[in-house]
Amino acid sequence: MLGACIENVRKNVPLVHNITNYVTVNDVANVLLACGGSPIMSDEPEDVEDITSICGGLNINIGTLNQSSIKGMFLAGKKANELGHKTLLDPVGAGASKLRTETAVKLMEEIRFDVIRGNISEIKTLALGSGTTKGVDADVADAVTEDSLEAAVKFVKDFSKKSGSIVAITGAIDLVSDGEKCYVIRNGRPEMGKITGTGCQLSGMLTAFIVANPDNMLEAAAAAVCTMGLAGEIGWKNMQPSDGNSTYRNRIIDAIYNMDGKTLEEGAKYEVL
Amino acid sequence: MLGACIENVRKNVPLVHNITNYVTVNDVANVLLACGGSPIMSDEPEDVEDITSICGGLNINIGTLNQSSIKGMFLAGKKANELGHKTLLDPVGAGASKLRTETAVKLMEEIRFDVIRGNISEIKTLALGSGTTKGVDADVADAVTEDSLEAAVKFVKDFSKKSGSIVAITGAIDLVSDGEKCYVIRNGRPEMGKITGTGCQLSGMLTAFIVANPDNMLEAAAAAVCTMGLAGEIGWKNMQPSDGNSTYRNRIIDAIYNMDGKTLEEGAKYEVL
Amino acid sequence: MLGACIENVRKNVPLVHNITNYVTVNDVANVLLACGGSPIMSDEPEDVEDITSICGGLNINIGTLNQSSIKGMFLAGKKANELGHKTLLDPVGAGASKLRTETAVKLMEEIRFDVIRGNISEIKTLALGSGTTKGVDADVADAVTEDSLEAAVKFVKDFSKKSGSIVAITGAIDLVSDGEKCYVIRNGRPEMGKITGTGCQLSGMLTAFIVANPDNMLEAAAAAVCTMGLAGEIGWKNMQPSDGNSTYRNRIIDAIYNMDGKTLEEGAKYEVL
Repeated sequence: MLGACIENVRKNVPLVHNITNYVTVNDVANVLLACGGSPIMSDEPEDVEDITSICGGLNINIGTLNQSSIKGMFLAGKKANELGHKTLLDPVGAGASKLRTETAVKLMEEIRFDVIRGNISEIKTLALGSGTTKGVDADVADAVTEDSLEAAVKFVKDFSKKSGSIVAITGAIDLVSDGEKCYVIRNGRPEMGKITGTGCQLSGMLTAFIVANPDNMLEAAAAAVCTMGLAGEIGWKNMQPSDGNSTYRNRIIDAIYNMDGKTLEEGAKYEVL
Repeated sequence: MLGACIENVRKNVPLVHNITNYVTVNDVANVLLACGGSPIMSDEPEDVEDITSICGGLNINIGTLNQSSIKGMFLAGKKANELGHKTLLDPVGAGASKLRTETAVKLMEEIRFDVIRGNISEIKTLALGSGTTKGVDADVADAVTEDSLEAAVKFVKDFSKKSGSIVAITGAIDLVSDGEKCYVIRNGRPEMGKITGTGCQLSGMLTAFIVANPDNMLEAAAAAVCTMGLAGEIGWKNMQPSDGNSTYRNRIIDAIYNMDGKTLEEGAKYEVL
Repeated sequence: MLGACIENVRKNVPLVHNITNYVTVNDVANVLLACGGSPIMSDEPEDVEDITSICGGLNINIGTLNQSSIKGMFLAGKKANELGHKTLLDPVGAGASKLRTETAVKLMEEIRFDVIRGNISEIKTLALGSGTTKGVDADVADAVTEDSLEAAVKFVKDFSKKSGSIVAITGAIDLVSDGEKCYVIRNGRPEMGKITGTGCQLSGMLTAFIVANPDNMLEAAAAAVCTMGLAGEIGWKNMQPSDGNSTYRNRIIDAIYNMDGKTLEEGAKYEVL
């Protein structure tokens, strides 16, 4: 029941530590509040261990990484692992620069992530670059479409199995797999790509969902992905003729704020393969 | 007359230097513009002394502190003190990490702040941690309610007296005291807690208010707190059924933009104890 | 034809690397998406060369510069020059601090910029401070008005010629010159000054415009300036009585999102001197 997953977030108000980029950080914070969670941001190496200790989950996003925040990511990740906290990696731009690829791969090697979320190109970069995922066939198309779906599902299952993480690949069609099952999700609107940071927002929210649903993480991850896509659909319905991407951003977060279990249950469009 | 305080901000357009967190910084800038002030942001140690020199006030917020910005805080604070500029400390997360607590306490020791603004838990941390405030009874509840009001008022007066700063504790009920008098303010909406950074926004705005009302700082601080809360009430009245926290954020800033002295005077709900 | 310039942005979807301040970065990203471009942000010295290599243009904004990002600016700028990418400098706060002035001047000395965009006071600082621009008469008024227009046009033409860059001075009247011709643009609304970052947003968008119109950069720069001002006019028309600067920010970005070549062509108010 996906609906129960968001209700659990609202009930438990999970505190999520975010080491995230400065581009979309304000939206990440507001989305976490909208879905019922609570955000804290901290990237200073000397600060992150204390901060992550009082949280239930850690969201690491490498979107505007720097030498200091990279240190913070490793320290926070190890502490979160030690404490058994939920962890998520968002490898923004992996494949676009050596530093990003290497940082993402090294994070995967040294920290156990409950969930990895990215677009198909970022996840393929991790599959190719990470020693732990050797042997995964990353020869899938650069967009998940109905045509490439079968290969993409096989890829995400394989990579999830090898990495030991739930893997969420988001795009026109979203895939969420724990290696055995794969949620194929068809919520969302193409116009969401014209807003900066819907992916980063989802990663923050997804972390809250797995913290609040620890015994049901695959379904919780799928519920978060459906919530984001459905909010994109609801937000779009509320658009007026002169509205554009800036107002759309607000309407999506507003739709998450107003989302309840019943709305999510009825609006989620997915199959499990 | 609280109304005159905001009118003075609009008349004098105080320039405020903000060393603040990257989560809510954009909203802080827009709130400063909305109330009639003008914002500058700079945290680089080599830059902050020049920047603070051309401003009238300095707002230090430790929300996403790092080694470099901490240096910037001390340099800017000392320069602002030297020049007789107004200064405000927002100890975001004091008590949540050793670095934050120690930084906030050390800032209080080395820099004279005209105003300290935080929630009750942050202010209690400062009261317990700071040598200058030994003897303050911080054994008050973690939320200021009608039941705990008397003890909280005593606490804020004591801490203000010992620290030598006007102290603003914001929450369901807001308290603003200079050690002698205490404004007890009942503006605001609980839904404001679902928006990231209303506290940070208030700290920025409050700095502009004391710069523009140098001979009347206690009343100016209370006026800023009332402005924020009243804007929360007005913004809430303008909400439509599908609106949520993202739109609410905009409507609050909009309400500050449209606030005049008369509206503030009539809408402010406070008593002085 | 200014209208063709924005159509080319929508057609080519130029990828723009931004090293920009953390105050307005989210709006810069959303404006780049709104006009048809695509944003990437990165300021870490070890990351910027890879990132700028996959882009078509580089937007350097010194609004919240720090020691690390300054290094990033020089590395990215030199790489962009090497690769023949388009480059823009936004010298935010030049003249307000020694570090900002020196950094902006040094950037001009070591990197070739296709466009420099700032307000009159920032550009005057560059004209006075930069060795390459000795002899430019910067004795113009601190605001470009109908009265000071003639002197300002002469100044911007001279500075453009000496610096070898297209220079855009924005304010109540905007000037865009390549040393020979000068667009004098009268779009915009004074209320845009009550929103943080409309200048930063323009710099990001302007970079996309010159990348998408490489053979026609002066006109492209003028088209971007007109687009911003016209969006300010259209956004203002869509304001409701209780709206303020926060909603206005959204409406301006929305208006850019909905801007087509015909609307720009008809709404642009300029003369060429």
